[in-house]
Amino acid sequence: MRRSTGGGEFPAAGSGFREEEPLPATGSEFNLIGEFLRGIPRSRLPDIRVGAGDDCAVVAGDGIVLGTDLCVEDVHFRRSWLTGEEIGYRAAAAALSDLAAMAARPIGVLASLGVAARDADTLAAEVMRGVRAAVEAFGGQLLGGDLTRSPGPLILDLVGVGESGTPVLRTGATPGDEIWVTGALGGAGAAVSAWMAGGQPEPDARNAFANPVPRIREALWLASRGLPRAMLDLSDGIGGDLGHLATMSNVAVVLDAQAIPVHAAARQTDDPLGFALNGGEDYELCFAARPGDTELFHEEFVKTFHLPLTRVGRVEAGRGVYIILPDGGRKELNGMGFQHFGDEG
Amino acid sequence: MRRSTGGGEFPAAGSGFREEEPLPATGSEFNLIGEFLRGIPRSRLPDIRVGAGDDCAVVAGDGIVLGTDLCVEDVHFRRSWLTGEEIGYRAAAAALSDLAAMAARPIGVLASLGVAARDADTLAAEVMRGVRAAVEAFGGQLLGGDLTRSPGPLILDLVGVGESGTPVLRTGATPGDEIWVTGALGGAGAAVSAWMAGGQPEPDARNAFANPVPRIREALWLASRGLPRAMLDLSDGIGGDLGHLATMSNVAVVLDAQAIPVHAAARQTDDPLGFALNGGEDYELCFAARPGDTELFHEEFVKTFHLPLTRVGRVEAGRGVYIILPDGGRKELNGMGFQHFGDEG
Repeated sequence: MRRSTGGGEFPAAGSGFREEEPLPATGSEFNLIGEFLRGIPRSRLPDIRVGAGDDCAVVAGDGIVLGTDLCVEDVHFRRSWLTGEEIGYRAAAAALSDLAAMAARPIGVLASLGVAARDADTLAAEVMRGVRAAVEAFGGQLLGGDLTRSPGPLILDLVGVGESGTPVLRTGATPGDEIWVTGALGGAGAAVSAWMAGGQPEPDARNAFANPVPRIREALWLASRGLPRAMLDLSDGIGGDLGHLATMSNVAVVLDAQAIPVHAAARQTDDPLGFALNGGEDYELCFAARPGDTELFHEEFVKTFHLPLTRVGRVEAGRGVYIILPDGGRKELNGMGFQHFGDEG
Repeated sequence: MRRSTGGGEFPAAGSGFREEEPLPATGSEFNLIGEFLRGIPRSRLPDIRVGAGDDCAVVAGDGIVLGTDLCVEDVHFRRSWLTGEEIGYRAAAAALSDLAAMAARPIGVLASLGVAARDADTLAAEVMRGVRAAVEAFGGQLLGGDLTRSPGPLILDLVGVGESGTPVLRTGATPGDEIWVTGALGGAGAAVSAWMAGGQPEPDARNAFANPVPRIREALWLASRGLPRAMLDLSDGIGGDLGHLATMSNVAVVLDAQAIPVHAAARQTDDPLGFALNGGEDYELCFAARPGDTELFHEEFVKTFHLPLTRVGRVEAGRGVYIILPDGGRKELNGMGFQHFGDEG
């Protein structure tokens, strides 16, 4: 914990910021991240097995897996949508989902929390209860964290810490592979849409948003059978997320619109496929596997986890993400994934 | 990266938050943290060697050391005080300082950044340049992170990742030990004070605030000689910070006011000792060592690092932190350390 610079709430910062060396405008968060990471050697130190660019960083011989996930009030959620415990649970589930994406066993999380003074006693404790509940439900524990004052929004940064001797990266997809996804997509997006329209989401949509299940057990199960060659978790929507997998693996991905498993809540909207592709925050797993391999374990998976496992597309040579529409047309999905800053000019 | 819930800036959240199970008000951040951590077993899993409660968490046989440090605009800094690179450098230095407090060698940091859309291209990149500069200056690298939109304040959560086979904890101080501190205290506090009064700090005060040096090399040097039995970094002010060490070690600490090394910039204020004790953000090391041991290495330390190393007090049986004033009086320092929420009612 560090000292803050003063006791009272500060006025908003003025315009005194000096832009000494502005970088060229890049226009999207993905470019911006590329800007940060450019020139960082992938393994400069012997104990870094996976550095920047994947879901988590992996350090040391044991394979300690680390991922971080920042959650900000009025950006990722509104306070009126969730209880304090749900805010914490959800943020921790997102961090754990990053571990699942690597097929890592959770060790725990570090939680950094920023709250306004008025929230320090009640809301902060409720949020942390939710964090602990999520972490402990998946066999980890709260490893530490930081607490500070926020000038307004609730701020929650969760660091997932896990272990995997053989983490599954985003780089292994090969032309000919099948693309599989767990669960159903678009439920959380349908909930957000209902709230944003001034209404209340259906219970199963609300539940998809408030209580996402990080697919830790499923990921470990799949990895122990050697199925995923490349994997990630679906946080921004399958369209945008698969773009990362395609880029990192130097391949193209082609989805079949009719195969996408659409969440029941999204099916009741006016754009089921749109929510399933771009709704975001589903925290399901998406992976590339050798053709035929996953089918052999499909029935056992569904029986074990009571969860759909669906082949939604294939890997091809080339680049980009495409979708085969019900009319047989093929459309590039580039730009359909959500971008944090892209629509604000 | 997760999807945000909408493209535009949200209005401020309303009062729809439900306080379902309010905890009893606790009144200070330290109590609040205790509330979070209560009941967490210290080593429930075999690969957690140090869990919640110290500067960092240590996991796995190799001793991977993890710490997190949340930095929020208008709480920890104002934008008008610092350049973007300084904001990033400073936040990373604070995270690295947590590693130094454990005598851990830095492996790298994960950086979570929340910025308003207007800052996404220029400020965010400058901040990340500063983060990288700090990390790479101490032999680590940027391991990854998260970027999201903020509804206003710049948000920066830095996770320090390091390695130590024998981390130095806060628990080893023993009655009879000496208390030592590196560097001089109160410079950063003097800078903040000047800014808050509407002026500009002296260059050396500004530098103490903007470019703190995490004492990584010094910590490794001291630890390799077996000197620190318990150690922490001074982030909230030596009065408050030593309270943590005293509590964790079940001892009392008695400081000698006349021995405290006061930063030149603090000496020019109307309360030099106050700034040195409570100014905060000095990021110097403070440790307990067996009587006589450190004196043997004192000259070599000063020669090697061109940095003062000062014996400032001793460990006694009992509890609490006390100071012997120049007039010989003994005063308890409880409550003199900064508390993030304590002065806002």
